[in-house]
Amino acid sequence: MEYQDYLTEHRDRFIDELVEFIKIPSISAQSEHEGDVYKAGEWVAERLSKAGLHHVQILPTGGHPVVYGDWIQDENLPTVLIYGHFDVQPVDPLDLWDAPPFEPEIKGDRISGRGASDDKGNLLSPIVAVEALLNTTGKLPVNVKFFAEGQEEIGSPQLPSFVAQNKNLLSCDLVVSADGLQLAVDQPTIEIGYRGMMALEIHVQGPSKDLHSGLYGGVVQNPIHALTHILASFHDENGRVTVNGFYDDVTAPSVEEREQLAKLSVPDSELKHHLQVDELFGEPGYTAIERGTVRPTLEICGIDGGYQGEGIKGIVPAQANAKLTCRLAAHQNPDKIRSAIKDHVKRCVLPGARVDVTDKEGQVGAYLMPHDHPGNLAVKGVLKNLYGKDPLVSRCGGTIPVCSLFLETLGVYTVGFAFSYEDENLHSPNEFFRLDSMDKGQKGYVQLLEALAVVLPARNA
Amino acid sequence: MEYQDYLTEHRDRFIDELVEFIKIPSISAQSEHEGDVYKAGEWVAERLSKAGLHHVQILPTGGHPVVYGDWIQDENLPTVLIYGHFDVQPVDPLDLWDAPPFEPEIKGDRISGRGASDDKGNLLSPIVAVEALLNTTGKLPVNVKFFAEGQEEIGSPQLPSFVAQNKNLLSCDLVVSADGLQLAVDQPTIEIGYRGMMALEIHVQGPSKDLHSGLYGGVVQNPIHALTHILASFHDENGRVTVNGFYDDVTAPSVEEREQLAKLSVPDSELKHHLQVDELFGEPGYTAIERGTVRPTLEICGIDGGYQGEGIKGIVPAQANAKLTCRLAAHQNPDKIRSAIKDHVKRCVLPGARVDVTDKEGQVGAYLMPHDHPGNLAVKGVLKNLYGKDPLVSRCGGTIPVCSLFLETLGVYTVGFAFSYEDENLHSPNEFFRLDSMDKGQKGYVQLLEALAVVLPARNA
Repeated sequence: MEYQDYLTEHRDRFIDELVEFIKIPSISAQSEHEGDVYKAGEWVAERLSKAGLHHVQILPTGGHPVVYGDWIQDENLPTVLIYGHFDVQPVDPLDLWDAPPFEPEIKGDRISGRGASDDKGNLLSPIVAVEALLNTTGKLPVNVKFFAEGQEEIGSPQLPSFVAQNKNLLSCDLVVSADGLQLAVDQPTIEIGYRGMMALEIHVQGPSKDLHSGLYGGVVQNPIHALTHILASFHDENGRVTVNGFYDDVTAPSVEEREQLAKLSVPDSELKHHLQVDELFGEPGYTAIERGTVRPTLEICGIDGGYQGEGIKGIVPAQANAKLTCRLAAHQNPDKIRSAIKDHVKRCVLPGARVDVTDKEGQVGAYLMPHDHPGNLAVKGVLKNLYGKDPLVSRCGGTIPVCSLFLETLGVYTVGFAFSYEDENLHSPNEFFRLDSMDKGQKGYVQLLEALAVVLPARNA
Repeated sequence: MEYQDYLTEHRDRFIDELVEFIKIPSISAQSEHEGDVYKAGEWVAERLSKAGLHHVQILPTGGHPVVYGDWIQDENLPTVLIYGHFDVQPVDPLDLWDAPPFEPEIKGDRISGRGASDDKGNLLSPIVAVEALLNTTGKLPVNVKFFAEGQEEIGSPQLPSFVAQNKNLLSCDLVVSADGLQLAVDQPTIEIGYRGMMALEIHVQGPSKDLHSGLYGGVVQNPIHALTHILASFHDENGRVTVNGFYDDVTAPSVEEREQLAKLSVPDSELKHHLQVDELFGEPGYTAIERGTVRPTLEICGIDGGYQGEGIKGIVPAQANAKLTCRLAAHQNPDKIRSAIKDHVKRCVLPGARVDVTDKEGQVGAYLMPHDHPGNLAVKGVLKNLYGKDPLVSRCGGTIPVCSLFLETLGVYTVGFAFSYEDENLHSPNEFFRLDSMDKGQKGYVQLLEALAVVLPARNA
């Protein structure tokens, strides 16, 4: 039997499996879902075993676990490590979902649910591909290791020490990431870089408890006022970050790269329509796609303080909080940026407010690899075959912490090979995945493993 | 039997009744408690009947109901309308309460619970006083009307039209408010004024849904940024409100009034210790007590936007909201201030953000009455008797919307006669009321009704 026939024959089962996988609410950011993240790890482990992989194991990290499995035929063959994650983003605001986020529904070519696109749908494809190859040819064209984690959505805090302590287990010639995007359903892309990430929380304490604003309004500092004074100072009115030194290490995109990005971008009018905003907005001097890929950001992703219920409450609140994240451009040092922001905050503290800045885990620098790396050439060939069109080469504005980590610790590059699209509401309500992407991913991984057997040098060659 | 003996004999029952009253979670700001507010109204109505009042009725207002009852002996006697409220503030943050807010506990002289001090404990006292008088003397020294409402904590939105439509029912020679404060357990006060109130909400809409900050961070306006830009512009760094015209109609306190307020104030060091802040803060040029009583404020009492759960979420949020309240000084026009703030907001809207300002109900101007009004003289005498000390005359920074309303609609002044203290956590976690205040209130109301029979002119005199 050809692998294509195997995939067709078992397609309904693979869809059922994805439904089952999405149903596990493996939200890594929320401690009440710790057991669910573990359960999703168990699901992956069982699925790897079923696919025919060996040495399958759930390994502790000190935080959410990782899952490993391999199929090593010949130590002289190149080894490919396939990476993905089984944790998902939180689901709120829940009221904006058309269907419950953990009860996937299939409508036409779409399967809904938190994690459908990021990253459960993508992670299942290479597992299915390996199963298809083993059940039809009895072997794989290269040695394969699977490495799936459960903390990608919180910045993979325990992964650096895990990878450092397990270099032999994870040693390989190339990592293939099953986490990532394609530009459009009719335009494949190869992503050669990702932005880094740095996160912190700002806590402002006013009085020890909420106070009656009739008694104390005007008497003490309001921590919401003190917080907004800090937050409003991070950007100028045009959207440029005003933190001292923030842009110091960022290199401007080259003329060539700007041309490349321009080719990739959709018209502003289309983007505005898609996002339902009247205007795009951001750092002056750069196009939307440049701002969203190669330029760094400083975003407040959450704020809260005082009374948030219905109606009005006559209080001076006791406290206010904000969550801050930076997407870092290539060459920005996360520690340096963190310090610069803390210094900035210190200079903005108003009298009568106590301000604490807390480091959040999962800091990672940006990642960049050569566009002509053999791994990229193999991916290019497979994508051209799948889409009937040459892929464009781009950098992605998102963050895949393991890329920098694998490069630094294992000495290998990571190529992206995943089939999500920007319209699939990753991190938003109504996330979905295309069944067509499942098919492309399954076939694509078979072809990629075959292509890598050709382009990657044998181990002891 | 003397009324004092009656009060002593039935004291335990009165405490049990207060416990029962506090147990009703009559939070007027939260629609899920609408039934509880009504239930608290029913409780008051039953208690009035039990005390011997006539014509007891629960009347609709279009919002939370009001309760009325009277005891009219002789139309030639002066009529005193006793006012209070049976609704309470919301309870969050719930985790800061030592005991559940609606399960009152009595420890020593203190009874805990939301509404214990504001205003259920105070409202019960005149009812008990009337009961004691009727059960010991068979009559009251003046005609009495009770008028209790269920929407004070949300600014009494339906009360203006209710009072306007029920002028005859409520007609009287003086209102006595069972809602208010005494300065200290050893220092009584007469409050001759209250600040007004104006509230609105600011909603900032960015993209139509939360976006992945890896894809769109830097591309669109972040509504939290746009909101903090607006909020931070409301005050200068010293805490003075920067809204054009905000202070235009505010008269500076006279030298005499400043001296009076200075006499009333506690030392800054003590206030800082009490509120657990490192520094007091507010409009320059005024003392803490001046800022908290005769000067106006603009406070953000609540803010929310984006992800507020545990950890970090990599999003550009879709929206952000803030709740704004002003405590208005005498002579400030609420409509004018509202317009000035809206104009200010309009000028601060950053590109790519849609900003809506929503009027909140319950707007009311400040209130001020002559300190030598006969009602105040009667109160002065009773307080001197209860505390063994001459009361100080002050203005309160809080808002009792009905004072302005009764003056404008019924043509009568309202004197405050209540026994809460600032340390009783009104509007905060761990609210409590002193049983001693119950005793003072009950005796005080008997004596006040007797004193008013003397100082108020007879109706047809």
